[in-house]
Amino acid sequence: MDQVRGSQSIVFAETPYIVSAASVAGSKEAEGPLGKFFDMTSQDDQFGEKTWEEAESTMQKEACVLALGKARIKAKEVRFLFGGDLLRQGIATSLGVEALQIPMFGLFGACSTSGEALALCAMSAAAGYGKYMLGVTSSHFGSAEKEFRFPLGYANQRPLSAQWTVTGSGAFVVGMRESGVKIRGVTVGKIVDYGLKDSQNMGACMAPAAMDTIIRNFEDLGVGPDDYDRIVTGDLGYIGQSILFDLVKGKGYDIRKKHLDCGMTIFDQETQDTHSGGSGCGCAAVTLASFVLPKIESGEWKRVLFVPTGALMSTVSYNEGASVPGIAHGIVLEHNDVPESETL
Amino acid sequence: MDQVRGSQSIVFAETPYIVSAASVAGSKEAEGPLGKFFDMTSQDDQFGEKTWEEAESTMQKEACVLALGKARIKAKEVRFLFGGDLLRQGIATSLGVEALQIPMFGLFGACSTSGEALALCAMSAAAGYGKYMLGVTSSHFGSAEKEFRFPLGYANQRPLSAQWTVTGSGAFVVGMRESGVKIRGVTVGKIVDYGLKDSQNMGACMAPAAMDTIIRNFEDLGVGPDDYDRIVTGDLGYIGQSILFDLVKGKGYDIRKKHLDCGMTIFDQETQDTHSGGSGCGCAAVTLASFVLPKIESGEWKRVLFVPTGALMSTVSYNEGASVPGIAHGIVLEHNDVPESETL
Repeated sequence: MDQVRGSQSIVFAETPYIVSAASVAGSKEAEGPLGKFFDMTSQDDQFGEKTWEEAESTMQKEACVLALGKARIKAKEVRFLFGGDLLRQGIATSLGVEALQIPMFGLFGACSTSGEALALCAMSAAAGYGKYMLGVTSSHFGSAEKEFRFPLGYANQRPLSAQWTVTGSGAFVVGMRESGVKIRGVTVGKIVDYGLKDSQNMGACMAPAAMDTIIRNFEDLGVGPDDYDRIVTGDLGYIGQSILFDLVKGKGYDIRKKHLDCGMTIFDQETQDTHSGGSGCGCAAVTLASFVLPKIESGEWKRVLFVPTGALMSTVSYNEGASVPGIAHGIVLEHNDVPESETL
Repeated sequence: MDQVRGSQSIVFAETPYIVSAASVAGSKEAEGPLGKFFDMTSQDDQFGEKTWEEAESTMQKEACVLALGKARIKAKEVRFLFGGDLLRQGIATSLGVEALQIPMFGLFGACSTSGEALALCAMSAAAGYGKYMLGVTSSHFGSAEKEFRFPLGYANQRPLSAQWTVTGSGAFVVGMRESGVKIRGVTVGKIVDYGLKDSQNMGACMAPAAMDTIIRNFEDLGVGPDDYDRIVTGDLGYIGQSILFDLVKGKGYDIRKKHLDCGMTIFDQETQDTHSGGSGCGCAAVTLASFVLPKIESGEWKRVLFVPTGALMSTVSYNEGASVPGIAHGIVLEHNDVPESETL
């Protein structure tokens, strides 16, 4: 029997596993600190396609095919696919996963979508709704700038609080088949709105949601920072991280020694200045797939709270003066050998 | 134990129920055949707000509050909310349900989203992940025309194949608490692409997906048209319906006597000419809430296959020449008194 914990969390009695994961990334990401860990990178950020959007779809498809290959299963063995991206009407996903012909649920959680997808994959697998689920998310610098900001050819100056959208896609096969990484539980996020309106300072917009989900995870599960080897946020960046530390401190916790942000990990701040760090649906997904999961698999990290964060906005809501609320979903990942007695 | 059936379906051993449903609609819908059945309508299609987008958010919030009230539960008793709309980055939902502070999963399935939401609500409730789930979707004529077609002030001429986006929102409380309507099972749809590219003929784009999901439901569950009192599609409209009949006939089934399309039901074709019928995320949702569910609750219809359909496109994909694939999700609804022996 799965355990519903506190107000927002589930701890799985019988845990699903991340059976396999795959990452596909662009040229700037390939040159960064995680470059050597990605499964596939392309020096051509259009991935052989005619448009940025088609390139993003191609990345998703390649990430899915790679993850399926690593799991040694075929697409038709996957019961449900949960996927999303940042583009309007999630078109990168629809046109990307179409060829796989897997029954699918389209998602939108901005840059938190990898957490949303993993939560739903884990919930569906643990409930016995199928042997394998597939979660996939992506983002692309070219398509995101066009969607949310200015045409690239306009060469606008980016404010220092801006983040650099990661070109990449991560895919995850989740199932009840044993692997090195368990999904022990999930904490589903609420929308958190501190009234900020600056879409070029997304770290500040998302930090309150990250805090809310992390604290909720601690309280729902009766744990604290010491119970995790790492607390990994998606793409708060440098500004968002400092706000997160302050907000979490205000709740009586100190996570500074345990925190890692994917947006601060994927690019080298000295040689690849992105201003406030990386961002995008793909940022947390490829960092998880290429860098975080192997460390859990090897046992270097026994338990990780993965908390991708999203800024809920569109150009229309922004232009109409609406605020930019945030959302964050927490996924508790555990090394497979953690004894039952020590699990949460 | 839930029964995974065929390649895309689930039949719940212990069925969740639609505990309550609510519908909110605009002025044109109020004047239509279903006008008297809606819980709330407004003569002001801006619902007292400054923009179409805010109006859509307000409809979603009102529909949720009405559904919660009918179920006599508070928002904090709802474990998870599953919601979505047609706007870019699902902003009507994010800003609409924000005030409810329910942990949430954002969805995108175009006009199939009400089916996607009901499927995930039912799957989560049946798995024991919480006592109550809340599903909500919406669309708004003003925001949709702006998002997908032309500014209203441009007064463009609509082709005869075009459909009229419904201004409305439907919300559904789903849980293991007995009511008049069971969710017996679900058939999760795949993306179906016949290569059509005309975004002003969405019925044609969606009909193949409706056929695929209906046939899959028949084959996965070992049933046929005779096992249903009605097969209710979301918004195929007049053109989509005739294509659906042909496609289904090609598979050896005749559903003509059982079929009802929400987009052909919500407006009066003689006095409210919409060209090919109603459409939008809200179309199937408010028709289900106001018209279909009461007939199941009363026992007039014992079993209904609800199949909302979506056209997966954006203005960007359209302008870049991509096709418009479709997706449809099937929800098997049953009158509560259908004996166990006669269920699927």
